[in-house]
Amino acid sequence: MAPTFSTPIKIISSILLLITIIITNGQAPNQTSTLVFYLQDVGRGFNATVMPVIGINGRVWSYHSFGTIFVVDDPVMLSPSPFSTQIGRAQGVITVTSLDGANVNIVLSLVFNNGEYSGSTLEIQGNSRQRENSRELSVVSGTGRFRYARGFVVFETMSYDAPSERSVIRLTITLALP
Amino acid sequence: MAPTFSTPIKIISSILLLITIIITNGQAPNQTSTLVFYLQDVGRGFNATVMPVIGINGRVWSYHSFGTIFVVDDPVMLSPSPFSTQIGRAQGVITVTSLDGANVNIVLSLVFNNGEYSGSTLEIQGNSRQRENSRELSVVSGTGRFRYARGFVVFETMSYDAPSERSVIRLTITLALP
Amino acid sequence: MAPTFSTPIKIISSILLLITIIITNGQAPNQTSTLVFYLQDVGRGFNATVMPVIGINGRVWSYHSFGTIFVVDDPVMLSPSPFSTQIGRAQGVITVTSLDGANVNIVLSLVFNNGEYSGSTLEIQGNSRQRENSRELSVVSGTGRFRYARGFVVFETMSYDAPSERSVIRLTITLALP
Repeated sequence: MAPTFSTPIKIISSILLLITIIITNGQAPNQTSTLVFYLQDVGRGFNATVMPVIGINGRVWSYHSFGTIFVVDDPVMLSPSPFSTQIGRAQGVITVTSLDGANVNIVLSLVFNNGEYSGSTLEIQGNSRQRENSRELSVVSGTGRFRYARGFVVFETMSYDAPSERSVIRLTITLALP
Repeated sequence: MAPTFSTPIKIISSILLLITIIITNGQAPNQTSTLVFYLQDVGRGFNATVMPVIGINGRVWSYHSFGTIFVVDDPVMLSPSPFSTQIGRAQGVITVTSLDGANVNIVLSLVFNNGEYSGSTLEIQGNSRQRENSRELSVVSGTGRFRYARGFVVFETMSYDAPSERSVIRLTITLALP
Repeated sequence: MAPTFSTPIKIISSILLLITIIITNGQAPNQTSTLVFYLQDVGRGFNATVMPVIGINGRVWSYHSFGTIFVVDDPVMLSPSPFSTQIGRAQGVITVTSLDGANVNIVLSLVFNNGEYSGSTLEIQGNSRQRENSRELSVVSGTGRFRYARGFVVFETMSYDAPSERSVIRLTITLALP
């Protein structure tokens, strides 16, 4: 009788394999995709894209002074060049939350208004260890085509010009979409 | 022999169908539910429910002025009427985060204190394109019976009275619960 | 013929059981783990770990005054003793968001820099009903080994010394990791 069972047993094996795959998928994000964008950040002058709003009374307002709150609206570009295609804005609030001035807390929306993600957003939240070149924050959600998105984002400063306080920041986003 | 296999093969087919369903479920939220609430928002006077706290030094504080930070505590009602049942409060922080004044960043808790959701909360975060009537933000999480909730919420202004700065805002929330 | 089918039928039963388990897992977090930490919070003096930054013009700045914004950087310890092992900092922004002064909105990162979680973070967001001893907020995400984490956290005040405004707060975190 053995051979007569071979077909269902093969099918059952396939099913068990499939189930294993499903279980594996259940324990890690099904699929992740990576997006890379570049922020053009200007800290000074008429074209400033980030400004301090308030700080603790009697203290200097700076990225290294506990309690300083900044608001930011950086262009989001497809490449590091300031002349590359702009696809959105990175808009949010940055607060210096470590007493030693090392860390900032960031709540940021990537608001896409051009290209394939136009009309969608990604919501970022987390702590940025400013003294490290590579800084990981969380992607907590999104809207539009990024509904239910989750993941993480690495911020890296590609270049910084001290006199004008201009910097280019690379965002490498790893997303799990449902 | 064929007929003798019909039962297991039917079962196997059912299993494969089930697995297909599971895979499908794995790629989209299992189930979503929709909740609709109404905020009563008052921008002026003794009964104001939203107030500016600070803005960039030397600028007017307004919803159209980059850097202005508002704090809000709007009643959450079951219908658009200000006399309908109040089931909670929408409490959070609104920051004007676009240099052109178009967008605000919102961090908001829906704090339920009456009715079936009493004691639970929903956490909202995102960007609101103020000039659009329909504005989508993210539901990033919740507490109580909304633990592990995720989804999105559409804000729509139902009515606005300019002199008193009173508006009724409809929140249509799509939730995926685990 | 019945006995000859017993093996595949048993296997099929097992598969159905497995599928049931998978479906069940799909409707609740696969696995949760619990972490307990203690914050040392100091509201006054040279060692203050939380400070008001701004409040509504003309009002007292306090935890009971709508619109007051605090920034916090509390040590995260393994036990309630201030001499226990410090494993990180709880850094974030606290805003009084209820008109009656009862609730604050919290955006907080647990930034681990010592021990097994060093280099990782947990992102907390939510509403804290200050008048209740047990206050539930959401864990919206994390980084490092807490990537894709979700869950909830209960804040409980273990002790409070009014003159120095020192308190010990227990955080019981329930995490679902993917």
